[in-house]
Amino acid sequence: MTVYLVGAGPGDPGLLTVRAAQLLRDCDVVVHDRLVSRQILAMVPLWAEHIDVGKGPGTGVKQDTINEILIDRGSRYDCVVRLKGGDPHVFGRAAEELIALRDAGIATEVIPGVSSAIAAPAAAGIPLTTRLASSGFTVITAHQDPANDRTLDWNALATLGTTLVILMGAARADAIRDRLIAGGMPASTPVAIIANATQPTQTETRATLAELGTQPIESPATIVVGDVAALDLRSIVVPITTHEVVPR
Amino acid sequence: MTVYLVGAGPGDPGLLTVRAAQLLRDCDVVVHDRLVSRQILAMVPLWAEHIDVGKGPGTGVKQDTINEILIDRGSRYDCVVRLKGGDPHVFGRAAEELIALRDAGIATEVIPGVSSAIAAPAAAGIPLTTRLASSGFTVITAHQDPANDRTLDWNALATLGTTLVILMGAARADAIRDRLIAGGMPASTPVAIIANATQPTQTETRATLAELGTQPIESPATIVVGDVAALDLRSIVVPITTHEVVPR
Repeated sequence: MTVYLVGAGPGDPGLLTVRAAQLLRDCDVVVHDRLVSRQILAMVPLWAEHIDVGKGPGTGVKQDTINEILIDRGSRYDCVVRLKGGDPHVFGRAAEELIALRDAGIATEVIPGVSSAIAAPAAAGIPLTTRLASSGFTVITAHQDPANDRTLDWNALATLGTTLVILMGAARADAIRDRLIAGGMPASTPVAIIANATQPTQTETRATLAELGTQPIESPATIVVGDVAALDLRSIVVPITTHEVVPR
Repeated sequence: MTVYLVGAGPGDPGLLTVRAAQLLRDCDVVVHDRLVSRQILAMVPLWAEHIDVGKGPGTGVKQDTINEILIDRGSRYDCVVRLKGGDPHVFGRAAEELIALRDAGIATEVIPGVSSAIAAPAAAGIPLTTRLASSGFTVITAHQDPANDRTLDWNALATLGTTLVILMGAARADAIRDRLIAGGMPASTPVAIIANATQPTQTETRATLAELGTQPIESPATIVVGDVAALDLRSIVVPITTHEVVPR
C-alpha cells in the first residue's frame, strides 16, 4: 500500500532510472501526466490500470481530483505509481500530493528523475555549468506572468550570473524576455530553445535574448539563457583514417 | 570508438539511468571519480579496465591527465565510460573533457544523470519547489571562496527568492553563511544539510542560516537553504486499521 511519486525523466526511456523502470513493470495502477512519453507508458503491463490526468494548458484533471484518485487507489492497491515528467519535485506539485496522501495515512516514496532542466541542455550539446562561463544554474517556470510574480526577484535574476533554465516557458517567452532585459540582462545574451528534448522529435533554436518570444515556440520547451547557450559540444565524428591527415 | 560521459546519480544504484546501467555492463573501460559509490562500480564486469581518477580535496589526477587517459582509451576501445557522480554537466567539468575529445577526433555522448541537487532534498523529504513557498531553485558550488567569487552576484543570490542548493560546500559553509547574510538573506532562513544522500549512510541536519558552518559537515554534502528546508514530507506510515479511527 504505497504510492510512489516517480520521475519519468525527459522522454527518452533510456533516461528512466532503474528503480522507475522496475516500478512501472510491477505496479497495479499508473496515474500519469501529459508530459510522459508513449514509449515509457508502453512499459506498463496491460493488466495495470492506466489513469491519464494530463494537465495541459487549460485542460486536464484538477489537483484535488488527482489527490482523491491517489488516495483511493493507494488505499486499495499495493503499488500505485504517480508518474510525472522529469523529476516529481521540479514544478511537479509533488508536495501537494504527498501532504494529501500523508493526511490520509497512505505511505509514499519519491523516486527522483532526470529533470529536463539538466537533460535538455545536454541533448543540445550545452554544458549547464563550466568552470569558465558559469558557476551555477537557476531553474524557474513561467506559470505566473513575470509582471505579477512576487515570489521571485526578477532584477536579481537578471544580474545573478548563473545559467538560467526556464521550464514550461513557451507561452510567456516574450514577457520573460522583457522582464530580464528590464532587470539589466544584456539583450545580446545567448539563448537556446530545445523542444521535445531527448526524443526523436527534438528541435533546437539558437537566438539572443532580444529574439526570445518573437517566434512561436513548440511545447514542451526548455529555454536556456546565458553564455553557455551559444555552445555546442557534441562531437563531430571524424573517421580515424582522415583524422590523422587533417592538420590541427 | 565512443567515450560516454555518464552521470552515476547520487549514490543509490536504483537511481542510475537504464542507459547508464547498460553502458556499465557493456563497457571496455570505466574511468571514474571518487564520488561514485562502490555498489555502482560493482556493476562493471571484472574484465573491463577500471581507472580511478578520484579527485578529492587536494588529491587525485589532474584534469589534463584525465583528458589524456580518455583520448588514449577512446582511440583504442569501442566503449569507454567516463563515470561522474550526479550529472556530468553539474560541476563535473564535462565541458573540458568533451572539448579535448572532440579536438582529438573521438566521438562522445553525454548520458545525463540524477543530480544530488535534486535527489538529496527529496531523500530528506524536502520539496525543491512548491507552488506556495518556492518558484524555482538555484544550484551553486563552493569551489571558489565566496569572498573572491566574481562569477556570481552574491547580493542577488541572497534576495532572489528561489530555493538555494549548494553542492560541495562543506568546507566553505561558514563563508557562504556570512556572504548570504551580508547580502540580505535573513539569518533565520531554514537550512538542511544532507550528507551521503540516498545511501545507507545518509545523515541529515536541520538548522538556520545563522547556524550553518558552526558545526563540522560530513562530505559529500548537499546544503539546502530556503523555506522548504524546514519541511519533511516523508510519510509517517499509519496502519489502515488505526487510520480509520483517528479523528482528522
